[in-house]
Amino acid sequence: MNKSMELQNKTNIILGIDPGTIIMGYGLIKVQGTKISLLEMGVLQPGKVKDSYKKLQLIFNTVSGLITKYQPDTFAIEAPFFGKNVQSMLKLGRAQGVAIAAAMRHGITVTEYLPKKVKQSITGNGNASKEQVMKMLQQILAFTEDPGHFDATDALAVAVCHHFQQKTVLGGTTEKVAGWKDFMAKHPHKIKAGR
Amino acid sequence: MNKSMELQNKTNIILGIDPGTIIMGYGLIKVQGTKISLLEMGVLQPGKVKDSYKKLQLIFNTVSGLITKYQPDTFAIEAPFFGKNVQSMLKLGRAQGVAIAAAMRHGITVTEYLPKKVKQSITGNGNASKEQVMKMLQQILAFTEDPGHFDATDALAVAVCHHFQQKTVLGGTTEKVAGWKDFMAKHPHKIKAGR
Repeated sequence: MNKSMELQNKTNIILGIDPGTIIMGYGLIKVQGTKISLLEMGVLQPGKVKDSYKKLQLIFNTVSGLITKYQPDTFAIEAPFFGKNVQSMLKLGRAQGVAIAAAMRHGITVTEYLPKKVKQSITGNGNASKEQVMKMLQQILAFTEDPGHFDATDALAVAVCHHFQQKTVLGGTTEKVAGWKDFMAKHPHKIKAGR
Repeated sequence: MNKSMELQNKTNIILGIDPGTIIMGYGLIKVQGTKISLLEMGVLQPGKVKDSYKKLQLIFNTVSGLITKYQPDTFAIEAPFFGKNVQSMLKLGRAQGVAIAAAMRHGITVTEYLPKKVKQSITGNGNASKEQVMKMLQQILAFTEDPGHFDATDALAVAVCHHFQQKTVLGGTTEKVAGWKDFMAKHPHKIKAGR
């Protein structure tokens, strides 16, 4: 196997998190060369837990469990910088903090993306609806099911956004995958006609 | 050794944290029967670290290190619920979150106190100055040095506050240590004349 093939076969696993204090979404993708595939997506519901520490514990334990299961190389988190009020932002910050700590504990790189950036990267429109994001992901990752919570697809979107932002070294040249336009140009077979 | 003596000799270690994104204070006390003593206090300065993840990493690693070193039974954190603006509260929440996660990782109970409650518990006045809190702690814990940062004494105050809030079982009876008044009544020798 030559160096270029080796690099193309290097597997990268990305864990995306859409943190929330009511529902937290997660999505895992595997990147191998130019192929991206869905590993798992889902939600946890800290909002259903009354005690504020048990909420944080649920987040910490779930994220830790996903890391142990899939050994991701990167942790990408959607991070809004503005919210309704100081109390809700403190709670959101705590939820983000424990999720980030779970990644730190395993020495995994943490990257953060603004919601607008994620939408822009996936759909080409920073103001796209959650449904548009989901539909685009269904095409990119070739799945048909609707996970029932946009938090899950939003988390998956962060993971895919991170992949698009990464510089991928292929065949000795540095290729920057810039976003959906670039993705479509490179993978026309993944885009259904008429969309 | 009878049961009462055993209980009196049971050692409890409390780690107090005053979280902040610029300076974070920590203080550790050892409680043995009716004796409380200072183990260590100090500060870490995430404000001196530029990268926002390295800031959180500094907090996570320092708190984890203190837990490994002293094996505290409880983690008490000072938690304001209001702040200047949503951005600073999000950052504070993240700082709290990683500190809490360091405790969770080791299965340590986390208890949270409002700043007013801590001041009330230590000095009898919820609006006491940081200097008054420090002076009272110097008497309770019999130390003379000034750590140079009120963040360190504030963190120590949270640990002592937690001790005061705990129900202490001594000689088979349940004794609730209610705060400084109660403390002074029970330990008159610890209070200097004229104060």
